[in-house]
Formats: sequence, C-alpha cells, structure tokens
Amino acid sequence: MKKLINKPEDFARETVEGIVLAHPESLKMLNGSYHCLVRADRKKTGKVAIATGGGSGHLPVFLGYVGYGLADGVTIGNVFASPSAEAMHEVDKAIHAGAGVLHLYGRYGGDIMNFGMAKDLDEMEGIEVTEVLVSDDVASASKGKEDKRRGVAGLVFAYKIAGAAAEKMVSLAEVTRIAQKTVDRTRTMGVALTPCIVPEAGKATFSIGEDEMEVGMGIHGEPGIQRTKLKCVDEVVEDILLRIIEDLPYSAGDEVAILVNGLGGTPKEELYLAYRKAHEILQEKGIAIHRKYIGEYATSLEMAGMSVSLLKLDDELKELIDAPCYSPFFEQSR
Amino acid sequence: MKKLINKPEDFARETVEGIVLAHPESLKMLNGSYHCLVRADRKKTGKVAIATGGGSGHLPVFLGYVGYGLADGVTIGNVFASPSAEAMHEVDKAIHAGAGVLHLYGRYGGDIMNFGMAKDLDEMEGIEVTEVLVSDDVASASKGKEDKRRGVAGLVFAYKIAGAAAEKMVSLAEVTRIAQKTVDRTRTMGVALTPCIVPEAGKATFSIGEDEMEVGMGIHGEPGIQRTKLKCVDEVVEDILLRIIEDLPYSAGDEVAILVNGLGGTPKEELYLAYRKAHEILQEKGIAIHRKYIGEYATSLEMAGMSVSLLKLDDELKELIDAPCYSPFFEQSR
Repeated sequence: MKKLINKPEDFARETVEGIVLAHPESLKMLNGSYHCLVRADRKKTGKVAIATGGGSGHLPVFLGYVGYGLADGVTIGNVFASPSAEAMHEVDKAIHAGAGVLHLYGRYGGDIMNFGMAKDLDEMEGIEVTEVLVSDDVASASKGKEDKRRGVAGLVFAYKIAGAAAEKMVSLAEVTRIAQKTVDRTRTMGVALTPCIVPEAGKATFSIGEDEMEVGMGIHGEPGIQRTKLKCVDEVVEDILLRIIEDLPYSAGDEVAILVNGLGGTPKEELYLAYRKAHEILQEKGIAIHRKYIGEYATSLEMAGMSVSLLKLDDELKELIDAPCYSPFFEQSR
Repeated sequence: MKKLINKPEDFARETVEGIVLAHPESLKMLNGSYHCLVRADRKKTGKVAIATGGGSGHLPVFLGYVGYGLADGVTIGNVFASPSAEAMHEVDKAIHAGAGVLHLYGRYGGDIMNFGMAKDLDEMEGIEVTEVLVSDDVASASKGKEDKRRGVAGLVFAYKIAGAAAEKMVSLAEVTRIAQKTVDRTRTMGVALTPCIVPEAGKATFSIGEDEMEVGMGIHGEPGIQRTKLKCVDEVVEDILLRIIEDLPYSAGDEVAILVNGLGGTPKEELYLAYRKAHEILQEKGIAIHRKYIGEYATSLEMAGMSVSLLKLDDELKELIDAPCYSPFFEQSR
C-alpha cells in the first residue's frame, strides 16, 4: 500500500484536520468533531440550508462543495462509510436558518438510512427537511429503473445548482424542485483502469488485468457493466458518451453542461484527451456545450479512470449554473 | 501502460487540442501549432509580456499559468522535451506589447539552450528580452550551488508574482527584479512513490520497490538524494520541510506562502495530511503562513508523490501574491 499517510485508522480524521487548518475562514468543525463541517461564514437568516454527506475518500466530494453558492454543511464518514444519523442531525441544527434543510446526497444504502433517521430527528425539533437523492450513474441500473441508480460525479451539478438557487432566497420547496430537476436531467458513466486501496483495508478494492478496464465502475469499486480490454480514449469516450446520450436522451438543439471527471490517479492530460473527443461527438450531434468542468471533482482515492457527465440545461438552470460560487475546492467567478 | 490515450505520438498535440477546444475564450494557438499558445484576450499595450515553456506532461505547468495576472504565452514541447527556439520566438513576437518580454522558466538544459536562441532571434527584431530561471529544487544541488538547481513546483510562485507585477504596468527591469527575488526566496523538495510512464517510451521512468520512496526526485524522474523505505507522511514532511527551512533559511517571524503539490497520482486527501504536518511544524517554528496552495500545481503525469514549497514574503510580495489572477487552471479571486 503506497500511500503518504499515518495510521490507517486516523486517515479520515487527519484529512479533515488538515483541511480545517488550511481553510479556517471557510470551514469549521462542530464541537471539535471531524464528522461535522459547516460553513464558517455567517448564516443568512431565511436561506434554505443544504446538507450533504457520505464517506471519505472522494475529495472534493463531499466537503469540498460546502461554501458560498453551494452546500452549507456536510457530515463525513470514514473511508467509503456512511456517517451517523446523529452527526447529520447536529449539522442540520447548526445550518438551519429558519427556512428548512435540503438533504442532497448520492443514492447509497447507508446514507439513505442515516439521512432518513436524521430527518426524523430534525422534524422532532421542528426543522422542515426535504431530500433529493442524486442517482446519475447510467451503469448502475437500467433505463426505467432510474430510482435504483447510484450517485456519482453528477453530485457536482446538483450542489452547484441547488446552492445557487438557495442563495437567491427562494423557498425550500423551490430549492428542492430545482435540485430534483437537475438530478432528473443528469447522466454519468465512467471507466476504471485501476482499483484503489482503502487505508484500513490495506488491499485493492478489486483486481483487474494490466490490459483491462471496467466500464461503468462505481466510485467504491462496485462492478460495472462490462470488463473489456483497454481501448484508446476516443473509443472509450464514444462508448460511454453514446450510452449517456441515448439514456436521457440528449438531442440536437439541447444545451448541456459537461463534466469530465478524473477518479484520482488519472493525469489531467488524459482528461483533456477525453474532453477533446466528447466535444467532437456533441458537436456532431448538434448538442451545444454551455459550460464545461474538466478535472478531479469526485474521486475514489488513487483510482485511475474517469467519468463523463452531462446535464441538460434550460434558461433556469443556465442562470443557476453560471452563478458564482466559492469553496476552497471549487471556485467559479465567471 | 494503463493510460486513456490514443496514439502515444499524438499525446501532446491532442492534449493541447482538447485544452483549446475547452477554453477558447482564454487560450489560442498561433498558426494552428499546438506548440504555441497565447492568451486569447486582447493584449494590453505597454504591459511587460511573460513567456514560459517546457515539455508536456506537467499540467497545469506550463500552459495552465497563461492568463490574467500570470504569463502571456507558452511554448509546449513533447512529453518531457523542450520546445524549439523558433516556436519560442513566435510566441514572443505574438505577446510582445512594446514593453519587452521576460522568459520565465525552469532550469533545464534543453530549455536554457532554446530560450537562449529565442532571445537572440527576438533581439534581432528589436524585442528586449530578460530571463529568470526558476531553480527551487533543494535536492538537485547543494547549498551554495543554487544556480545549478532545477526548477520544480516553485514555478507557480514565480508565475503568480511576476504576472501580478506585470499587470501593474511596471517596467521589464522591475518585473525581472521581482521574479528573481521570488525565485531567490523559494525552496522546494519532494518525494516520489511511483514513477510515471512517458507515452512514447511506454515504460516507467525509473523502478522503485513496493516499500520504497525516493526523496528529492525531480519531475522527470531525475534521481533524488536518498532512496529509503516508505515512511509515514508526518515523517516525510518533517524530513523535507526541515531541509527546506534550513536551506534559505526561513526563520521565526517570517511570513511565507506554502505550496503542497501533488505529482499526479496522489489523492488530495494525502496532500491535506501533508499540509496538516507542515502547518504544525511551521507554527512551532514561529513561521506564519500567509497564503497556502494545496493541490496539483505541477505534475509528472501519473507519478505518485508530492512536494512542499515555501516562499518567504515581504510586503511587496504579499501584495502581489494576493492579487487576483485567472486562467482555466488557476483562479484566485480572493
């Protein structure tokens, strides 16, 4: 296990400690617990609060999307493990500013259970809570079963847009509607070339041949839909992008945001090779790229691979995706 | 070779094509050549132009630092290979805005030769040129031989500060002085855990045991000063940071900027573990952190490892490092 870490069991805590030492003007812990981070700037009374959370090992997901025009608080579990309902409830109480809380997170069993319990705890204290589950991974369940799909890099679009909506001081129902609309219009698919190693486990999440790749791999190493020989990037992008396009479907005349996301171990150069082909395919199909994100936005530790996400925009979503936002991990000023 | 690429010989060109397709509002090629990129916004007459360049495979170095408050143009070679003097000359002519050109680049043999020839070509056409060579890698030559040291992640500080100075419309002599001052006050050291693979070579740049790391490795796989057993991140950071601190030296009462840089394959989590320890050591020594950068700022393809850089600030440098800048790869708005 070639990692720059201390004791494996301290990995998640020490990572968050490093982040809070680096960015105290942006993020603060609640009651000294690394499981609970909230925005360090002053709460805006009457603003809908957005809470997210999940396991560690996916930076900038989840805590990197807490900031202005994004989420307000995050609950952090150990690597690839859901945080507790009690911790979620603490975050919700801290970020609630009188206008309710949106739970916005990826569809995973443990998180669904814990956010559900946290919602019950919140409601007992009079905090109104809604939830939107991001479920953009086309490979994780077939068409027609969108409500069984996992959430992957499409989380980023949901944070960006719901966060911008909340800053406009609209109601909880309205932020929830817009977040759900974003999820409904987002599709992602990825490939993995190598596994990653969870520090406490000390061994690879799966094994794969030197000349193989896994198409549709989940961000915790969940099996994809196909194990194939490694192909050139143009073929890989064509394969996954065509599956994404036909799933929604995205059609000629649509405007989209695109996210080419690195899983951790893949160099930025390769992400731009992937973007190059995606740009060509979308152009051929008459799908216009309104905004693009290319980099590491949702990772799986040192896993090599990448995913492509599309979000179908309309005037409402364009205004929101173009709005400024700021966190130490995700800054958009233009 | 597990990479998401097309033909290895097309890697550098296709990467730049992807970047220009993604960011046409920021970067443009000269004469359709992927070797020559310049800012796409309008030249400011009378502003000192800053040119940089070097081999591919280090994103965001070099081209990611072309933008507002940064460099104006870049010449791009193939992977880990210097671009040509002729290409550098083309870039210089394109970015020259009547106030001269600063060649700002890392100290490597091929680049020194080619930038030197480009300077001659420029001067024959009446363009005044100065040069500052970044040479921050403490491990690459002993103290007293600073002028033999390689340039590594400290490049980022040089771009940031010289770029901010140039935007203030000061003279070429003044931008040059400030860039040299930045280099003189910057020190870097890194460790590598794995090699990388140059696409056209198809094999690792060096070999290293599963339980080993190389201390002081260069960003092209140049040997470091020590091959040791892999240590925990706290020990690694202590080792390299103490060497950096005593080299300048940085002393109690100093204010610094710190860069914890990932080499490509190392997850952001581990960079924050490294920052955590660096923060603790600097605090103990009474060295104040004025600004921090934590992420992938200068890479070697998929190499795993990281470096730490310090820059000793004064009032002049603080103002310049705090100034806003923008490129598609490096945005600072606060």
